[in-house]
Amino acid sequence: MPAELSIRPLAGLPMVEPGDDLAALTLAAMAENGLTFQAGDILVVAQKVISKAEGQLIKLADVEPSARAIELATETDKDPRLVQLILDESSDLLRKKPGVLIMRHRLGIVGAHAGIDQSNISHADGEAALLLPRDPDTSAAELRLALGKATGVELGVIIADSMNRPWRLGTIGCAIGCSGITVLDDHVGGKDLFGRELKVTLINRVDSIAATATLLMGETTERTPMALVRGFDPEDSPQRAADIYRPLDEDLFR
Amino acid sequence: MPAELSIRPLAGLPMVEPGDDLAALTLAAMAENGLTFQAGDILVVAQKVISKAEGQLIKLADVEPSARAIELATETDKDPRLVQLILDESSDLLRKKPGVLIMRHRLGIVGAHAGIDQSNISHADGEAALLLPRDPDTSAAELRLALGKATGVELGVIIADSMNRPWRLGTIGCAIGCSGITVLDDHVGGKDLFGRELKVTLINRVDSIAATATLLMGETTERTPMALVRGFDPEDSPQRAADIYRPLDEDLFR
Repeated sequence: MPAELSIRPLAGLPMVEPGDDLAALTLAAMAENGLTFQAGDILVVAQKVISKAEGQLIKLADVEPSARAIELATETDKDPRLVQLILDESSDLLRKKPGVLIMRHRLGIVGAHAGIDQSNISHADGEAALLLPRDPDTSAAELRLALGKATGVELGVIIADSMNRPWRLGTIGCAIGCSGITVLDDHVGGKDLFGRELKVTLINRVDSIAATATLLMGETTERTPMALVRGFDPEDSPQRAADIYRPLDEDLFR
Repeated sequence: MPAELSIRPLAGLPMVEPGDDLAALTLAAMAENGLTFQAGDILVVAQKVISKAEGQLIKLADVEPSARAIELATETDKDPRLVQLILDESSDLLRKKPGVLIMRHRLGIVGAHAGIDQSNISHADGEAALLLPRDPDTSAAELRLALGKATGVELGVIIADSMNRPWRLGTIGCAIGCSGITVLDDHVGGKDLFGRELKVTLINRVDSIAATATLLMGETTERTPMALVRGFDPEDSPQRAADIYRPLDEDLFR
């Protein structure tokens, strides 16, 4: 266990544009904040900047809604073109009500609107929407590799997104992409304080870290979509965020 | 936004017994870890030590299961006395399957087994189970008051419990009791980076903080059920963890 964990939001990142070199932007932000990477650091990056760099910004004018999208849009009081994007990104519709579509994203993530967001993006060329990265585990691995090459240091990387939850109000940051970090820490078979066998203790390390880091990043006007987490060993694990999503046959809330 | 947030697990707490003075134990642990409270610090405490100090340990031999508890226990392959405790603590049964009962606790918390746990407690006098604190917001307020009196410093206090979630594997720590800290940060009506109005941005600050703190505390053999969070203003808010639970009429997953 660490004696102390620290989380430093990285201020001063520029607006990210499609094709931007995120590793270079990260290193510039680190330098601007007077920091250099150390072995075992964990970089948490807001999903939004990954999606922007990967060109996941879609102009709604380019979307042709299907009959089903138009019907769902009427039911939920949403823009039919946005609903079409949500359907395109999803494998399953779980719940709907006016203003809300709870979807299973094709990646496995369950949440509102398939993670598609219209805030903190430019609508200067007409109304737009930002999709999740196509493959956030790979995005995390690529950023980790590039930062490792540039610095010679092994990091953990987490891509985090703010999510709503069914029974608890208020968003918290969760991991949607990871590289080089233990995702699920399996205590099953371990012993507790009194020597009793632990039955079900699988700890989600990356969601646990993404939560506080996301709170500090402040995705809105503060413009700090990255945070450096120091003091918790990422363990150079091959696990991925894709390992988090509960298998369909264990889902009691479909 | 803070330049840096730190989380320090407080090592060396003794086993907590019913009636123990948690404020005194906290101050001893702080001293043992070379720390003193500063204004704006947030203390995160694992639910388990609050419950133990409040005498929420129940001997299963003292529980008489009802016919319904026996029936549910057969269906879910659980101890009927444990199921009786779960029913006694809950207002609603949401889902059941072998090994699992998803309940709405009378406090409003939705989760497995009404938060009742059999790990990290002594079964020396026969098998036992630990209930959640009777009123964790009040427990947090009392601990905060006692620590404030002893130190002259205003803190935020969060009581955290590890919880499972419907679609994401692995537990994370969530807040079940709070005092002196903003629970839900309401950005609705604010503006994003591009001046667009933010539609739905309610941020759950206490769950966000409880998550990483709980990861560091390590509730099992590490015996560090408290953590000191420094660098995030608790804002002396009157909000409570009870404000987190989504109203029944908004629950799409009953």
